[in-house]
Amino acid sequence: METLMIHHPSPMPPLRTSRWFNTPEPITLDSLRGRVVVVHAFQMLCPGCVAHGLPQAVRLREAFPEDQLAVIGLHTVFEHHEVMGAEALKAFIHEYRLSFPIGVDEADPNQPLPRTMATWKLQGTPSLVVLDRQGRLRLKHFGRLDDLPLGAMLGQLLEQPIAPETFVDEDRDGAGTCTGGTCGALNPWQGCRDKPFDLPAGRYLG
Amino acid sequence: METLMIHHPSPMPPLRTSRWFNTPEPITLDSLRGRVVVVHAFQMLCPGCVAHGLPQAVRLREAFPEDQLAVIGLHTVFEHHEVMGAEALKAFIHEYRLSFPIGVDEADPNQPLPRTMATWKLQGTPSLVVLDRQGRLRLKHFGRLDDLPLGAMLGQLLEQPIAPETFVDEDRDGAGTCTGGTCGALNPWQGCRDKPFDLPAGRYLG
Amino acid sequence: METLMIHHPSPMPPLRTSRWFNTPEPITLDSLRGRVVVVHAFQMLCPGCVAHGLPQAVRLREAFPEDQLAVIGLHTVFEHHEVMGAEALKAFIHEYRLSFPIGVDEADPNQPLPRTMATWKLQGTPSLVVLDRQGRLRLKHFGRLDDLPLGAMLGQLLEQPIAPETFVDEDRDGAGTCTGGTCGALNPWQGCRDKPFDLPAGRYLG
Amino acid sequence: METLMIHHPSPMPPLRTSRWFNTPEPITLDSLRGRVVVVHAFQMLCPGCVAHGLPQAVRLREAFPEDQLAVIGLHTVFEHHEVMGAEALKAFIHEYRLSFPIGVDEADPNQPLPRTMATWKLQGTPSLVVLDRQGRLRLKHFGRLDDLPLGAMLGQLLEQPIAPETFVDEDRDGAGTCTGGTCGALNPWQGCRDKPFDLPAGRYLG
Repeated sequence: METLMIHHPSPMPPLRTSRWFNTPEPITLDSLRGRVVVVHAFQMLCPGCVAHGLPQAVRLREAFPEDQLAVIGLHTVFEHHEVMGAEALKAFIHEYRLSFPIGVDEADPNQPLPRTMATWKLQGTPSLVVLDRQGRLRLKHFGRLDDLPLGAMLGQLLEQPIAPETFVDEDRDGAGTCTGGTCGALNPWQGCRDKPFDLPAGRYLG
Repeated sequence: METLMIHHPSPMPPLRTSRWFNTPEPITLDSLRGRVVVVHAFQMLCPGCVAHGLPQAVRLREAFPEDQLAVIGLHTVFEHHEVMGAEALKAFIHEYRLSFPIGVDEADPNQPLPRTMATWKLQGTPSLVVLDRQGRLRLKHFGRLDDLPLGAMLGQLLEQPIAPETFVDEDRDGAGTCTGGTCGALNPWQGCRDKPFDLPAGRYLG
Repeated sequence: METLMIHHPSPMPPLRTSRWFNTPEPITLDSLRGRVVVVHAFQMLCPGCVAHGLPQAVRLREAFPEDQLAVIGLHTVFEHHEVMGAEALKAFIHEYRLSFPIGVDEADPNQPLPRTMATWKLQGTPSLVVLDRQGRLRLKHFGRLDDLPLGAMLGQLLEQPIAPETFVDEDRDGAGTCTGGTCGALNPWQGCRDKPFDLPAGRYLG
Repeated sequence: METLMIHHPSPMPPLRTSRWFNTPEPITLDSLRGRVVVVHAFQMLCPGCVAHGLPQAVRLREAFPEDQLAVIGLHTVFEHHEVMGAEALKAFIHEYRLSFPIGVDEADPNQPLPRTMATWKLQGTPSLVVLDRQGRLRLKHFGRLDDLPLGAMLGQLLEQPIAPETFVDEDRDGAGTCTGGTCGALNPWQGCRDKPFDLPAGRYLG
């Protein structure tokens, strides 16, 4: 069944973070293996994140059990760095009563984009990144995504068994074609990353 | 994985309808076998249906492909019968621009509840009924249900293969216990029908 | 001060109704003299009325005291007459828990528009008609109007004294020019009736 | 006519600000004399301000003409001072595209409350302060206020002439009784400050 999901899931570069909130110790993607993972990349001064992305992350945390779905915030500051530091984020988290783990994407002194955001090739904030139980990339979405298609995708991933051999990562060599489109990209991760923008809002391709 | 779903799915009594809109011929549950089915039971003068249920049905129709998910409206009139007849419904469907198939639940001259509503033991409107690809009952929910847990449940059902032998209908004899609770009902269909009310709003039990 | 209001208020033709709900006896505009009056013209099967107009009428009723502001519903059926009769409306009023007086605009056997709607030259539903304490037309608005400019207009009218001589109805002869525009109409009631559509949504001209 | 308004309007202590945005020069209350004034006191990390207060301020700016109604933001930081400085506010104003003048309430090294907030005895953020054309306090409201009663109050104030002698400031000595209640306070400004909380949400007392 076709979906919003990337069909030739890719291995995911690790998180690179400088600080964490709401967790006793730093979180790694490896430590989340076996659970479906939603990473909500945001900036505290991004209106779309505050109005839509973060409330959706809160709903995700409330709607799914923690041992099945991990919800992680990632503060990917790529502008106004001087006023969105860790202390400002700490106050923001406190005022907005956010309770899920939130990591600070590690700043890169040589460019405005922080390291995870750059490595993951995120287009902006808010962005949703979804990994399957094997820790592989299944969705990368910039902008608003409706609850219905997002819920459908997560339900689908939650139903899939944790069986590494089930998935053949055919596209690691970049020779595959992009699911549901004619992007013809060498690497589906790159080639498909804009795919959700061509869909009607929140369309679940099934 | 536990969910909002009824875990010991039951066979579903057939639809009993007197008229259909938006479909060239009457729809039967048998004809939908192989697709996941959402039946939205409503009344045109029910505020909760107009404000929440029907817009959600429209979103469902837009978010999922028709060959995977069937969205059916069912006009279950159990009050004000004289002003919610088929002609009134026809005008309502036209004004609200509803495009999915809508059946009129067959009136019973001996009681206010129409026949499908009575046989399916629906508690009121709006009600959501979800059937799996085998046509068996997986959710019966009275009142509002959030998009996220509904989407998750549908994604999960869509991911399940159409393999009748996958599910053992252990509870056909009514001896099973209710999923995720201690309802101890003889028949999970009856015993669990109120279960969603005990949950936090839209909680997806996973 | 200029406003959304018609500045050369016109005398208003009487209501022509065939039935009333939520009032012990029929209401006439004359009987409301001394209060500011909001008439919400609607149809029970009009989505915009159900989603926006009627909830706003309920808010108006809650926000202002009855002895200062009268809120009246007017069921102006101009389509689907056979399924929006008085009995259907009665069920609708009951289900939506509407508590303010609602009159049924008198049907005209010779044309689809009911008599008040035709005489008042309403363009459709929902429409808001506002009269000042002297019973004169001050606003006629088709479609959605935001709470802020509507509240501002009502506050302004409520502040104006009930002194007939304060207003010189200069335009009874139709020679005036239209407020805030260059409509140059002979009769400001006609010439200005479309004016709100040229404004930014809910713009209060002050 | 009674309203949400303070009926024995008080002279208002001046704004004490350390910096302004969106205005070529600092704004004083005296310079706004002749216009009705809405001051929206907020903090950039206050969720209620971001979700309700500031969007309402934007709607106010759009709905009323500037020469009649002045809309002023006041950044009253009383917590997390170190991360809500002027530079952080500047980024916030940029990201949220706020276009009306915003002043920074002057910090007081001896206490957390900034000077204007303390002098005006504001209870928290968001707070709405409304002054009439004479520059006198007519409303001080902590928390959310619906558009309809706010619009009504502003319409009423806009309709009142700029005639200082119209109002006798009887309560300057604090001997008056509180409007619409039995607060019996010495000073209606103090005694009434909590009054809006006793009202049904957004009730316009008229």
